[in-house]
Amino acid sequence: MVERETQGRRPRRRGAGARIVAAPAAPSRARLVNPFKPVEILSQDSIEAIHEASMQILEEIGLRVLDDEGRALYAAAGAAVDEATQTVRLDRGLVLAAIARAPSRLTLRACNPARDVAIGGDAVAFVTVGGTPYVSDLEHGRRPGSLAAFEDLMRLAQSFDVIHMLGPASEPVELPVDERHLAFTHSQLLLTDKVPFVYSRGRQAIAESFDMIALAHGLDEEGFAREPRCYTIVNSNSPLQLDSLMLQGIIEFARRGQLMILTPFTLAGAMAPVTLAGALAQQNAEALAGIALAQIVRPGAPVAYGGFTSNVDMKSGAPAFGTPEYVKAAFASGQLARRYGLPWRSSNVNACNAPDAQAAYESQMSLWGALMGGCNVLMHGAGWLEGGLTASFEKFILDVEMLQMFAEIFRPVVCDADSLALDAIREVGPGGHFFGAAHTLARYESAFYAPLVSDWRNFEAWSEAGAPDAARRAHNVYKRTLAAYQAPEIDPARRAALDDYVARARRGAA
Amino acid sequence: MVERETQGRRPRRRGAGARIVAAPAAPSRARLVNPFKPVEILSQDSIEAIHEASMQILEEIGLRVLDDEGRALYAAAGAAVDEATQTVRLDRGLVLAAIARAPSRLTLRACNPARDVAIGGDAVAFVTVGGTPYVSDLEHGRRPGSLAAFEDLMRLAQSFDVIHMLGPASEPVELPVDERHLAFTHSQLLLTDKVPFVYSRGRQAIAESFDMIALAHGLDEEGFAREPRCYTIVNSNSPLQLDSLMLQGIIEFARRGQLMILTPFTLAGAMAPVTLAGALAQQNAEALAGIALAQIVRPGAPVAYGGFTSNVDMKSGAPAFGTPEYVKAAFASGQLARRYGLPWRSSNVNACNAPDAQAAYESQMSLWGALMGGCNVLMHGAGWLEGGLTASFEKFILDVEMLQMFAEIFRPVVCDADSLALDAIREVGPGGHFFGAAHTLARYESAFYAPLVSDWRNFEAWSEAGAPDAARRAHNVYKRTLAAYQAPEIDPARRAALDDYVARARRGAA
Repeated sequence: MVERETQGRRPRRRGAGARIVAAPAAPSRARLVNPFKPVEILSQDSIEAIHEASMQILEEIGLRVLDDEGRALYAAAGAAVDEATQTVRLDRGLVLAAIARAPSRLTLRACNPARDVAIGGDAVAFVTVGGTPYVSDLEHGRRPGSLAAFEDLMRLAQSFDVIHMLGPASEPVELPVDERHLAFTHSQLLLTDKVPFVYSRGRQAIAESFDMIALAHGLDEEGFAREPRCYTIVNSNSPLQLDSLMLQGIIEFARRGQLMILTPFTLAGAMAPVTLAGALAQQNAEALAGIALAQIVRPGAPVAYGGFTSNVDMKSGAPAFGTPEYVKAAFASGQLARRYGLPWRSSNVNACNAPDAQAAYESQMSLWGALMGGCNVLMHGAGWLEGGLTASFEKFILDVEMLQMFAEIFRPVVCDADSLALDAIREVGPGGHFFGAAHTLARYESAFYAPLVSDWRNFEAWSEAGAPDAARRAHNVYKRTLAAYQAPEIDPARRAALDDYVARARRGAA
Repeated sequence: MVERETQGRRPRRRGAGARIVAAPAAPSRARLVNPFKPVEILSQDSIEAIHEASMQILEEIGLRVLDDEGRALYAAAGAAVDEATQTVRLDRGLVLAAIARAPSRLTLRACNPARDVAIGGDAVAFVTVGGTPYVSDLEHGRRPGSLAAFEDLMRLAQSFDVIHMLGPASEPVELPVDERHLAFTHSQLLLTDKVPFVYSRGRQAIAESFDMIALAHGLDEEGFAREPRCYTIVNSNSPLQLDSLMLQGIIEFARRGQLMILTPFTLAGAMAPVTLAGALAQQNAEALAGIALAQIVRPGAPVAYGGFTSNVDMKSGAPAFGTPEYVKAAFASGQLARRYGLPWRSSNVNACNAPDAQAAYESQMSLWGALMGGCNVLMHGAGWLEGGLTASFEKFILDVEMLQMFAEIFRPVVCDADSLALDAIREVGPGGHFFGAAHTLARYESAFYAPLVSDWRNFEAWSEAGAPDAARRAHNVYKRTLAAYQAPEIDPARRAALDDYVARARRGAA
């Protein structure tokens, strides 16, 4: 379901052959609404200055577009294309008219309707880590990603209701690249009932992934394309370049009405200017150019504006995340996305090598930047470490703790007569205590957030228990969670169809 | 300097015998202004409901006031005093008229004028940890506090310009209680040139501390009282009780025009109702009652509204900090303080036993709650661990890193033509990189925040270096900082006067 901000929410429709799924009681964190007014770090004048600079970039410098069909589509829409340099210059009239067709709100349909995800407005969705070549845990250390590790990350994603969508987690590096999408999609659809991720790794991989998602939903091609049921991330090759795979992603996702999140990789000082304003202007130009292409392909195609601007360590050139500059860029990116009426994607990122205090404070900086900035889709919400090189199982659990805390912060503070508790205060009186008060006893079991990892024992009890640090406790939670994991139900016929599809596609690929 | 919000800032005056101090170039973090509009978690109706409930508490239930002079002062101002139960009931007219006299902005004068601290409005001041019985570091583990440890914490406080005021750090438990204030004040005045803390531990200790601060400033009694030059924290004995030492603190600080921060210790579920609204209503009643007494003693006395509401672990009764409930209470406390035109004090707190990921994420939650809530004085800004039982040297450094990051987040994003960097983007062009661009080279050395602890080396380089975690790196920074510490200059005559005062007071105490 895709709609402009101004339209009301339409009643949802379902295909006749709706999938048979268990319908669990809606978990309390399954749908989150952010009650806070987004931070405005930039004045309206500054936002307009960045807008103006990005329009000048698109009009005067242009983008290098490394795909024939992409350039042809831009040209047909009225862009000035220089085939010799593969450069596309976009007039602001063209860009702004195109992005005005993008929906500001949409709903991603999951196989389990209880897992549908609202995107845009004040809705916020949390996503797992994505795209790491390595995985790590305290037991086995850091090692290349594998399908087994990917599947364990999917099991964790399924186990926590605060995770709303699946990210591409870690790479199954033992699989041939042209088969990975089959395993990726198969595992996501069988181990979870949440909205899956599809890589933009070429037309065939995209088409096959779509086929499989349609099978899991029990839909034909037309039924699949009626609503968004998966999403992809398209990164521009900053500065100002879109490669062929990325362009195929923009085009195919738009054609089939699936969500495409355009995220420029604008690291200030490396792939973007060293100044935040310049990096944001370039981010804005790249994001709007890609989103405009999606709208050229299919007006109303579901898209989101990705902000990933951070800075590099100027001593080494290494990317840094969760820095002060990152937080400021996040706030500003939210303002930019809202200026164009687009949902905004941000991230929970850090540049730390271990799940320690640095990982936590850099992640928290990213999280507050995203969530006080009004982010709608939080990528890398759980598990990201080492600037995205590693998916850490302990960090996954630490992040789930933090995300659950935010879910609780989002819940309103009730201020009725009952919660103002005058009678309890009168009953206890000066110098008393509330432990035994009736008002306390009636509420204490559910009054406060119950932590997953945080250890509030006193120092002596904690020391006697071996002084386990937060990473060690997260390790235990991750092991416990995997042991208790239960696969979602799936119609056996659909499961068989998926297995069969993968087997046939593998033979075709081999 | 003390003024109501509506007045302009007056030019500052100095006594003729101003202290001879080195005048370093103003460090960039010495004065921080928070540019963000404070978060409003409560509707205006909810704020008024909490206000109304707190007025009912003061009018109908009242406070137990465990000090004869305190009750007499309340009675003389028109309160209903029941001497049999030591209960004081305060009419809202009395309370609101009294707190209306409190300044909404003031300036704390340090011995070094470059260290003066603005309190209120959009100014924010960071303070060290305070009041811990234990200290810890990775080398010696956790041990009882000592004067040596206190002095090392003061040396750290002096070494970082992001620390604006001194907290009481750790207790020197080897000293007799009735002498600790002498050592406390002496060390603060000689090891730092920042605004000192004075405990409210009885009339004599307060008076002697004031005498010493006056000596350090080279001022007589009258000159000392002309402006606030130190501060104290008064905690009510929640629920609804003020003990004799706390009352003496309120009275003596008001009489001498020094800053008193009234902070109720309202842990929801223990010393306050289990519901946030109830805990906040009680916090508000206690804070306003104490602040009203200060204004009864001396209209215009410098005060601040302390918010410390958190929750307990309902399984054990242990206090928890940096929880979702804590964050919400912080946002709400800021709104309440602003409703009365009072500066707001919050804290950087956690309930963790080690400087690990939990300590960092709980601290970050507290920090964002305080700073997005518009806090003016951040107590326990650096070093607090274990719910305030321990001052950790490594946590001190980790906190300084986080505070420095906030100082950077507070700096405006410049959006002029130069920072929008169109020429650089044109020069680099699609597919290039910015490392060598003239725009980058002219700025890279100071473009980004340079971290103190964060380690952005790649995994291999970090592993070869022994894979030091953030706590270990913080340990190294703390040792390096102490080795490089330099004491501020002080007039030898004033130093001698302070030494002499302490010697005489010790003989008097012995």
